[in-house]
Amino acid sequence: MARMFKNDYSELAHPRILEALKKYSLEQNIPYGLDYHSENASNLIKKIFNAENADVHYLAGGTQSNMVFISAALRPYEGVIACASGHINVHETAAIEGSGHKIYCLEGKNGKLYPEDIKLALKNNYDEHMVKLKLVYISNSTEIGTIYSKKELIDLHNVCKENDLYLFIDGARLGSALTCKENDVDSSLLGSICDGFYVGGTKNGLLFGEALVILNDNIKKDFRYHIKNKGAMLAKGYGLGIQFEEAFKDGLYFELAKHANEMAESIRNILKKFNINLLDAPTNQIFASLPKCKANALIDKFGLEKWSEKDESMTVRFVTSFATTNEDVDCLNDYLEELFD
Amino acid sequence: MARMFKNDYSELAHPRILEALKKYSLEQNIPYGLDYHSENASNLIKKIFNAENADVHYLAGGTQSNMVFISAALRPYEGVIACASGHINVHETAAIEGSGHKIYCLEGKNGKLYPEDIKLALKNNYDEHMVKLKLVYISNSTEIGTIYSKKELIDLHNVCKENDLYLFIDGARLGSALTCKENDVDSSLLGSICDGFYVGGTKNGLLFGEALVILNDNIKKDFRYHIKNKGAMLAKGYGLGIQFEEAFKDGLYFELAKHANEMAESIRNILKKFNINLLDAPTNQIFASLPKCKANALIDKFGLEKWSEKDESMTVRFVTSFATTNEDVDCLNDYLEELFD
Amino acid sequence: MARMFKNDYSELAHPRILEALKKYSLEQNIPYGLDYHSENASNLIKKIFNAENADVHYLAGGTQSNMVFISAALRPYEGVIACASGHINVHETAAIEGSGHKIYCLEGKNGKLYPEDIKLALKNNYDEHMVKLKLVYISNSTEIGTIYSKKELIDLHNVCKENDLYLFIDGARLGSALTCKENDVDSSLLGSICDGFYVGGTKNGLLFGEALVILNDNIKKDFRYHIKNKGAMLAKGYGLGIQFEEAFKDGLYFELAKHANEMAESIRNILKKFNINLLDAPTNQIFASLPKCKANALIDKFGLEKWSEKDESMTVRFVTSFATTNEDVDCLNDYLEELFD
Amino acid sequence: MARMFKNDYSELAHPRILEALKKYSLEQNIPYGLDYHSENASNLIKKIFNAENADVHYLAGGTQSNMVFISAALRPYEGVIACASGHINVHETAAIEGSGHKIYCLEGKNGKLYPEDIKLALKNNYDEHMVKLKLVYISNSTEIGTIYSKKELIDLHNVCKENDLYLFIDGARLGSALTCKENDVDSSLLGSICDGFYVGGTKNGLLFGEALVILNDNIKKDFRYHIKNKGAMLAKGYGLGIQFEEAFKDGLYFELAKHANEMAESIRNILKKFNINLLDAPTNQIFASLPKCKANALIDKFGLEKWSEKDESMTVRFVTSFATTNEDVDCLNDYLEELFD
Repeated sequence: MARMFKNDYSELAHPRILEALKKYSLEQNIPYGLDYHSENASNLIKKIFNAENADVHYLAGGTQSNMVFISAALRPYEGVIACASGHINVHETAAIEGSGHKIYCLEGKNGKLYPEDIKLALKNNYDEHMVKLKLVYISNSTEIGTIYSKKELIDLHNVCKENDLYLFIDGARLGSALTCKENDVDSSLLGSICDGFYVGGTKNGLLFGEALVILNDNIKKDFRYHIKNKGAMLAKGYGLGIQFEEAFKDGLYFELAKHANEMAESIRNILKKFNINLLDAPTNQIFASLPKCKANALIDKFGLEKWSEKDESMTVRFVTSFATTNEDVDCLNDYLEELFD
Repeated sequence: MARMFKNDYSELAHPRILEALKKYSLEQNIPYGLDYHSENASNLIKKIFNAENADVHYLAGGTQSNMVFISAALRPYEGVIACASGHINVHETAAIEGSGHKIYCLEGKNGKLYPEDIKLALKNNYDEHMVKLKLVYISNSTEIGTIYSKKELIDLHNVCKENDLYLFIDGARLGSALTCKENDVDSSLLGSICDGFYVGGTKNGLLFGEALVILNDNIKKDFRYHIKNKGAMLAKGYGLGIQFEEAFKDGLYFELAKHANEMAESIRNILKKFNINLLDAPTNQIFASLPKCKANALIDKFGLEKWSEKDESMTVRFVTSFATTNEDVDCLNDYLEELFD
Repeated sequence: MARMFKNDYSELAHPRILEALKKYSLEQNIPYGLDYHSENASNLIKKIFNAENADVHYLAGGTQSNMVFISAALRPYEGVIACASGHINVHETAAIEGSGHKIYCLEGKNGKLYPEDIKLALKNNYDEHMVKLKLVYISNSTEIGTIYSKKELIDLHNVCKENDLYLFIDGARLGSALTCKENDVDSSLLGSICDGFYVGGTKNGLLFGEALVILNDNIKKDFRYHIKNKGAMLAKGYGLGIQFEEAFKDGLYFELAKHANEMAESIRNILKKFNINLLDAPTNQIFASLPKCKANALIDKFGLEKWSEKDESMTVRFVTSFATTNEDVDCLNDYLEELFD
Repeated sequence: MARMFKNDYSELAHPRILEALKKYSLEQNIPYGLDYHSENASNLIKKIFNAENADVHYLAGGTQSNMVFISAALRPYEGVIACASGHINVHETAAIEGSGHKIYCLEGKNGKLYPEDIKLALKNNYDEHMVKLKLVYISNSTEIGTIYSKKELIDLHNVCKENDLYLFIDGARLGSALTCKENDVDSSLLGSICDGFYVGGTKNGLLFGEALVILNDNIKKDFRYHIKNKGAMLAKGYGLGIQFEEAFKDGLYFELAKHANEMAESIRNILKKFNINLLDAPTNQIFASLPKCKANALIDKFGLEKWSEKDESMTVRFVTSFATTNEDVDCLNDYLEELFD
């Protein structure tokens, strides 16, 4: 059977991650994330992202990380500015609203928010009968595989500072964003550009887990209480610490992300060869538009996600992962040659 | 250094669990718990607990399992009856209240609730100006290591049925309860005695994870929406499925629990030899009362948790786990011989 | 000083309402809405709206009524479909989200939702990673003074039934909707067209208070618990009962609404005389577009609300109330004659 | 029919309150509590309670006032210390928990909390796995009609300051507490002894309404957003302002409370004459223990609330109000003479 290009969380973990877990399987560790592995991992992360004063917490998943951070940052009447296509708005079963907070959506552009979006949101919500907007949520890479440039991030940072807004970056696919060819953002920028972000493990070869990096002192306070109050504190927190320690001790994290990007690039090149239209998305997600019958054949064969359809055309999503191989890509190529024959 | 007897979640996982994860590390699986490993594990669990019509969901931790189940079972104005010493009341940073529900506490006896407690609770909360009590929360084994007898569970079941109350059993240490010498509850009873329970993995040799078994049809409805809404759905749900499949395919789960109980029994025997007073707790937790100076020495040496103190005496807690060895127990014996010399 | 046309809640209450309160000021009544005045009022309301099996509850305000009804109707992961301009989405400081529920917005048309909007919302939210849409919120009259026709309401009712959705009608200005010239909806339709609605008192001459009419049995259950749990149960509920009894015993409620509509009609006629552009809104709200300088003069003189601006034009809102007089309208006419001189 | 002694909210309002409302019935006022009546009332309240820097907000009821204040003061993981008999714990249908906050109960003594209770609560909740206690809730007078002395309040204030806890006083019956014979607390103490309190109108002759006085700057911030977010902002806020203005402009508020207390004192004297045992409660609530048959006769005749029973004895509650008359008291006396004949 062909390997699916369905998503980047269909394979459990990179072998090195499981090796590390196995190595420490019987070692006694302090529970609840207060162990030395978690501390090592946090020191590595703080260094890489130039965030020496940050607090780092490890959580089990992305929706949880978004929800715990946002609800810790906001008061009950405060809300979030997000792109309509944002993960928190579309794919989290109202977890943010479930914690009491409104998401004020803007269309944005290419899955991204711009300063003028923020300003419009603030203009539209101006008194106590409306939600008080206090946090800007973006993701990098975005839901549609695009990335923010250095300038775009700095511009957002500035508009947030000017308007007393927090900026939070969902990094479920941060590795992919920072290692793609078009990227001009250095990891060290993250530590000074926002009030918090998370470094996604689940979608980048870890068994599971996200490293939540808190930069703003106001949000740091009592954060462990917040985590536990939301049911998000793992007894065996060192199981997350061990994975992130392994991922960051010698660059494995970025290698895996880079590998997924390169596999995606290969696929993009193949698709172009067949004159298939691609959305402009440089990371490990590929959005391709084809005639419906061909698109459906690819869905059946490779487990692609159907993204949208219009008239006779359908857009499908390919995703590559740490586990995607050249053979998988070749297999796609072979199939396309048959399909377009 | 001596092995600590601090708790049963200080060691990552039994080697077989990690082997199973490794075996499937690159296999592609359907995400979000809809994979075949999870299905296999659920079938095993449903058989063992005589719950063929149950729905089984896998969550990351105990506080999360309690919170997701309870908030799914209740309407906003409904509350929980629990023992004052219950985990949800003391050790979950108000996660239940955080999801909007009041816990109505009763003292209970030996960490357990009895029908007369339930009746008193209902008598005290009788109209719409008070919380509407709708769910009884117990744990087996309890916070203080005691267990429910078959008769006690049936009595609770009956009083709940008569009063239209749900009964939920926190099974963070269910393995320990069901495999201890004094136990007369067969696992098959669980499927008919309550509206839901969870089978704890974290405290019984799994890397992490709890299997939440839902028996009442009213609570089953849309449960996956509930899980996601609380930020508790893992993308790599099959990572939990694989572990529970391994734990239940040939009895490993109960073996590990039995082992921990036996190690605890050995420790109890040793402590009695030194005329140390023990609370009546037959599972893998041991509550021992000693003169303060000796208790403090044991705390320093074996990482025990201080439970309470009164006058010149202190009660400390020992916990054994799947990883406790005869050597660890011998080491304790040697130390006690010195200490009481 | 000229009377303001700022809104319909700037005058305390119609004298008859205060007379009724005074009449019963020292009468002893059963508290919490279980009194005979409330029962009388409910019987009147049930008759007028053809809702004999309804439950009627009296609440203090509109945002509260929306929040209590919606949170009682929904489970935590369920959400609301509403018009982007809807009161719950714009003017309630995220009270709905504060109670845990997402509002999924659609543009609608003229402040109204149509079946195709509902179908689009359902098409976009189809699995457990998205909010489960369960309730359609509309208001009549709408935020921009438009009204639903009988056919439009029946069409919405049908699409809701077909898709297992609740339909809820915010009737903050229901009196105005049902008594305006263009209206073809009989009050008796309300009892069979939706799962709940409220009859607004605050904006129609009562001191304060809304009558929440619950038609769907699923939502009726334990509703008084819901009210109290949200802090919305008034000890002196009979103070609301007395007002609604007075308002409905001989048609005062609709008389006051009709009066406000007629005053608005007079204003519309005057504005047209000056060739001022009006939005198509037939109730007691008038949206008029004028050159900015003139609009600002009117704002200063009559306390109008600024609604929007575009280039050199500004749209302002006039609102009439039970207390608006012919003299007030004449005063406006005189001022406009000066202004346009 | 005899006048009931059921509670102090069975009569709508003192005639002067209704006169004031009538006087301003057609006056146009700024909505949402920003009117001049509310400002006048707030200035009076700030002067009387020596709270010149306070913010005063008017809410519709007591449960709502408690819930809005407490949820504004606390972060999600923070909880409340209260007496087990406290209104928020027993009689608010879990409204506090519904807003996400745990109430940690202590038995207290005579319905009151003492510094040693606070210290015990803090000792029992010491790390991030437990609720973080942040606010002490008391009421004056208490649920059982007792009052705090000046020394007791100062002691509580001090223990709160030392432990970084907020102190909040539920003043649903504050008038009764401050005007009873045994009271040694001057109203001016309130402004410096706590972080917030409310002055109850509903139970002291107003139509409805409570004046919430916020003293701590941290809690003042964005409080109007909080009010609206909880559905508690009244459009016709001036309807509350007018009432409190009338109540405080010349001492009516305290006169009404004093009157109720004096009526209660008369009843206590009568009850003593019949050798009926009374709990030590000096305000407008009287708790009397009688043989069951006699108690039931009084319940039937005067609508008393049954408080508790033990063996052959029953404790019933009498409550007097602004509307209780000497004739009502005489009527009780006559009936008792018959009953004890």
